[in-house]
Amino acid sequence: MKFRAIVIDIDGTITHRDRKLSLSAAAKLRSLDIPVVIATGNVLCYAKATAKLVGVCCNIIAENGGVIIDGFDNEPIVSDVIHECEEAFEFLSPQFDMEKLDSVHRRTEIVLRSNFDVEKAREVLGTHFPDVEIIDTHFAIHIKSKKINKGTGLLKMAELMGLDTSDFVAIGDSVNDMEMLQEAGFAIAVGNADDFLKDVADYVSEASYGDGTVEAIDYLKSGRLI
Amino acid sequence: MKFRAIVIDIDGTITHRDRKLSLSAAAKLRSLDIPVVIATGNVLCYAKATAKLVGVCCNIIAENGGVIIDGFDNEPIVSDVIHECEEAFEFLSPQFDMEKLDSVHRRTEIVLRSNFDVEKAREVLGTHFPDVEIIDTHFAIHIKSKKINKGTGLLKMAELMGLDTSDFVAIGDSVNDMEMLQEAGFAIAVGNADDFLKDVADYVSEASYGDGTVEAIDYLKSGRLI
Repeated sequence: MKFRAIVIDIDGTITHRDRKLSLSAAAKLRSLDIPVVIATGNVLCYAKATAKLVGVCCNIIAENGGVIIDGFDNEPIVSDVIHECEEAFEFLSPQFDMEKLDSVHRRTEIVLRSNFDVEKAREVLGTHFPDVEIIDTHFAIHIKSKKINKGTGLLKMAELMGLDTSDFVAIGDSVNDMEMLQEAGFAIAVGNADDFLKDVADYVSEASYGDGTVEAIDYLKSGRLI
Repeated sequence: MKFRAIVIDIDGTITHRDRKLSLSAAAKLRSLDIPVVIATGNVLCYAKATAKLVGVCCNIIAENGGVIIDGFDNEPIVSDVIHECEEAFEFLSPQFDMEKLDSVHRRTEIVLRSNFDVEKAREVLGTHFPDVEIIDTHFAIHIKSKKINKGTGLLKMAELMGLDTSDFVAIGDSVNDMEMLQEAGFAIAVGNADDFLKDVADYVSEASYGDGTVEAIDYLKSGRLI
């Protein structure tokens, strides 16, 4: 079967470890003749810049599925989930040294610097907020709604594009890519990915970071999967 | 003399015409061992993403000098000039088909899609708002305060970095790069630049867009100017 689109994470997947763009991954994505959807935990504005600069503008899943656009200047679709995240943050912040990041631009979740004990915070959160979870993407800590993730984002995006999620190849490296990899027709984890992500992947690249994405796309092309 | 830093525009200078990042310009900037300051008419969030992805993070002049940061998570310095731009927009918008872009993120000027007669708008504006000007960067139309520009931005940035503006090489392509090129110690216009910018430049590259920046940096290096 030929897959008809790619959905791909930014940080750790098309970048180097230090978040610099992998120029070889950018060149590879730019060369494709199928749509490439950017899917990130970052805010829409950052994702739009990335998509424009990489040259795969502009179908974007931002804020881990909370914000979606299908055109650079189109109005985003924004999930109504910020209130429960704010309440969880208000509950936790007196007990932990929490520093909000990107809070001006973020519309559906709360992102914090990785400078507190996440396991402890999860324990304290307990069952007080059953719809809220705390995840660590290695780049930041996210207090997010369980109702949204990159998988639910992919469902909406596929619909907007007139495709099925099984038409997509998903490529990622981190815990917040899990549902997207499970939802897509073919799942790829780059070499630096967490083990539990590699466990659900159909293909795991030998190479890490952007070089892993280059290897993965070469694999898809050589196998005529795209 | 050796210059100690570079200040450089994004769109049209380190990108291709379609705003895709020039991967060769990114590689060249990334290889430098002096600071590279991004100076753009775009919003801070877009500029931060660009600086991070290019790998020259994070001294940034955004919104044509209206917004400045000297660190990715540092609080920006924001000029207090938006009100006069809003008033000029309110005055003009009943007479022209004006569509605001990026208005959520923009803090010091108003940016409009290039779908109206700019000359006519300037005429109508006349002398009603002596501190406001309308400029066309080829990527969008900006209603901005005359009190700020990339030159005033460079003055502030140089001070933050403990440098003098004469320590900088400035590289750009458009009308909004003019004051920055005039303020810097050495001015470069890429091949696609407007003629009036080439007129004030110390060096004009043969090549256009990102390839022009690659050529310019090779020129600076070969002449031991950096």
